Amino acid sequence: MDKKKDILSLDEFSVEQINEFLIQTESFAEILKRDIKKVPALRGKTIINLFFEPSTRTKVSFEIAAKRLSADLINFNTSSSSLRKGESEIDTIKTINSMENDLIIIRHSDSGYINYFAKNVPVPVVNAGDGKHEHPTQALLDLYTIYKNFTNLKDLKIAIIGDILNSRVARSDIKLFNKMGMDVKVVAPSMLMPEDFSSFKTKFANNIDEVISDADVLYMLRMQFERQERKFYPSIKEYNKFLSLDMARFNLMKKDAILMHPGPVNRGIEISGEVMDIETLNKDKIKINAQISNGVAVRMALLYYALS
Amino acid sequence: MDKKKDILSLDEFSVEQINEFLIQTESFAEILKRDIKKVPALRGKTIINLFFEPSTRTKVSFEIAAKRLSADLINFNTSSSSLRKGESEIDTIKTINSMENDLIIIRHSDSGYINYFAKNVPVPVVNAGDGKHEHPTQALLDLYTIYKNFTNLKDLKIAIIGDILNSRVARSDIKLFNKMGMDVKVVAPSMLMPEDFSSFKTKFANNIDEVISDADVLYMLRMQFERQERKFYPSIKEYNKFLSLDMARFNLMKKDAILMHPGPVNRGIEISGEVMDIETLNKDKIKINAQISNGVAVRMALLYYALS
Amino acid sequence: MDKKKDILSLDEFSVEQINEFLIQTESFAEILKRDIKKVPALRGKTIINLFFEPSTRTKVSFEIAAKRLSADLINFNTSSSSLRKGESEIDTIKTINSMENDLIIIRHSDSGYINYFAKNVPVPVVNAGDGKHEHPTQALLDLYTIYKNFTNLKDLKIAIIGDILNSRVARSDIKLFNKMGMDVKVVAPSMLMPEDFSSFKTKFANNIDEVISDADVLYMLRMQFERQERKFYPSIKEYNKFLSLDMARFNLMKKDAILMHPGPVNRGIEISGEVMDIETLNKDKIKINAQISNGVAVRMALLYYALS
Repeated sequence: MDKKKDILSLDEFSVEQINEFLIQTESFAEILKRDIKKVPALRGKTIINLFFEPSTRTKVSFEIAAKRLSADLINFNTSSSSLRKGESEIDTIKTINSMENDLIIIRHSDSGYINYFAKNVPVPVVNAGDGKHEHPTQALLDLYTIYKNFTNLKDLKIAIIGDILNSRVARSDIKLFNKMGMDVKVVAPSMLMPEDFSSFKTKFANNIDEVISDADVLYMLRMQFERQERKFYPSIKEYNKFLSLDMARFNLMKKDAILMHPGPVNRGIEISGEVMDIETLNKDKIKINAQISNGVAVRMALLYYALS
Repeated sequence: MDKKKDILSLDEFSVEQINEFLIQTESFAEILKRDIKKVPALRGKTIINLFFEPSTRTKVSFEIAAKRLSADLINFNTSSSSLRKGESEIDTIKTINSMENDLIIIRHSDSGYINYFAKNVPVPVVNAGDGKHEHPTQALLDLYTIYKNFTNLKDLKIAIIGDILNSRVARSDIKLFNKMGMDVKVVAPSMLMPEDFSSFKTKFANNIDEVISDADVLYMLRMQFERQERKFYPSIKEYNKFLSLDMARFNLMKKDAILMHPGPVNRGIEISGEVMDIETLNKDKIKINAQISNGVAVRMALLYYALS
Repeated sequence: MDKKKDILSLDEFSVEQINEFLIQTESFAEILKRDIKKVPALRGKTIINLFFEPSTRTKVSFEIAAKRLSADLINFNTSSSSLRKGESEIDTIKTINSMENDLIIIRHSDSGYINYFAKNVPVPVVNAGDGKHEHPTQALLDLYTIYKNFTNLKDLKIAIIGDILNSRVARSDIKLFNKMGMDVKVVAPSMLMPEDFSSFKTKFANNIDEVISDADVLYMLRMQFERQERKFYPSIKEYNKFLSLDMARFNLMKKDAILMHPGPVNRGIEISGEVMDIETLNKDKIKINAQISNGVAVRMALLYYALS
């Protein structure tokens, strides 16, 4: 397989390569079960965590992944950076580039910026989320979480439910799941659907009840209140009626079906507090914490791929 | 001795175990005097510094302790975390837990939260200060500082002076010093005494002059202006008159007595600038910097206990 | 050569020692070209990054330098520190000192404070920039960048252009370049010249055109808008007319002359965007990114000097 310099979107990788990532992730996940969770794979490498948008979960997940591979990780805090002194974006790129790192992890609201950045630095660039566009490491950890449960991905029925419009997770997941031959259905009110939805070539429903008893995977999206410029949905009551997962609906899920969410959950909106509180007792069915845990292993696999 | 999972309060440990901590601290303090102050004891372990309240001194002290034991330390900055996105507290706990760390250091304004947290994560949790309640690593470093000077703790006369009401240091220290058989006296104006003071079973005075020439240890508390909801004390002049340590009072201390303070000192309030400025020349008597230095060794001992 | 404890100003070092630094930097620069850019030189040492002024470039540059030497680096974030709790400056010094580090890197607006600090801690202190006064690691990386191009520094013609008044880079560079026998000329409007300029013993011009075709090194300074208390210069148009480097002037530079800037560049003020955009194609002439890259090697050399 030809090696890519960057990991900007999983679209650029073949099905064969993605299967290879899943196998690699599995071996890193095994390391994380050991008493000493650290391997010397990337000793001596310097990785920059360059986050232009605030984030803790993804940033810390990458930091743990890097350190478990024995790399040095440097958090480049952009809020206090030269950007505030009026430096141009291309000059920031050249500055970071000149410090001679081995890999740059970047989150930025603009996918165009990340692509431009990757073209202008010689080292590998890993996209840690860009606006409403792509979030490839999240998509791969979601795929890995499903793969761990079903092994055979082909024709698996997955329903992605909620705020498609504002979710880069949704976009990245839909594309990746389709590529892997899964049977993807999107459930959302029309107001939370993007205008270019037809390009996704995906089935569509308005009501969670149309998929609840048939799906192998229920993927609940986070309501992105912080990205909604105006109020898109009439009310929480309305949302609960058509799109939320409460205990009654949870009990309608198929025996082997699993429940996923990228986190953090708005309790009482996407998923009821009652369902959230039984995760520990229902680890076979509720995979929200498994996703976080798998995120570290997936990021180890991707950093290792990019640097070896 | 049976091993505790967490270090939440020193109340939970036996006198025997606390003596063991003092001996362990001594051996780590010796490492800190070497040219290479680092040992491989916790190589490959990942420790999270999870501070819900701002702090530099305690946070950096733990960071240095962790790195000197060769652990990886990750600062989890909660001000930019999912908490601001409305995540519930139990979900934050589960998130951090899912990242598969080896130990979590936590500071939070609510002691109930820290206990709840510890019950819900499988890894050891170390309390780095909770509201007005407990600060066990501070209490142990205070005890170690006294132990280094007197060896025999039994019946040692210690006066704890100042803002008892708002001080978790005071609460933790009083309980620990009593447990170790020391003779504890509290000096405070009634307004800065907690309502449940009788439960401390400790002697009480209103004026530093009642203890100054008799105490083996003078422990001055920091005035917690930031925690005082209304003005508790009439004036600084009044405070100075009855509770502050100035040069005249310093000269009345017993020959072998020592002066302590958890820092940072409000000069001119708890202790005069004049007294502060002679510390370097009076290291046998003024132990404020020794406390900070001992703090690193104590935290090394506690992290090592929790992880081995 | 007698070894200094601190690196506060290059004034304190002999020409011989500075030449030694250049040679040392060269060997560290070679390490940075390797696949594994890390050496165990400072393994087990703890370095504190203590920045009282916001900075990303210099802070990250020191952090990378420290980690490539295998030291542990701890960022001491002063905005959340005890300083806000009213701790006195000398007590902060004693606190950091008590944590028993091996070296402290400090940036502070007041050069007096840094000198006072260095006198009061037993470990080496490295000045990372103090107000308008000194920035020795920047001066040395500038010198190294020139040395890499010309080897023979004697009588090399260097023009330093722009906001001399508010620039610690200018002050540090002028003194160092003079010391090394270079032929330094300052170009600035009278309003951006310091009152004590005569003490620099340096030639002076008002207009970049007086030096453009004669200088071996054109050193453009950053306009320190954030330090200008009132508007010193009539207008950007005026500045461009007499002091900026645009394409027309760039083409008038001598064949082997080089262009430098401490960064970040205000495009269209000190240097036009057009000139900035051709750096990648003109690496022999435009050395702005080379300066950043050399900064890591210089800081490795200085940390190594101070700790060995």
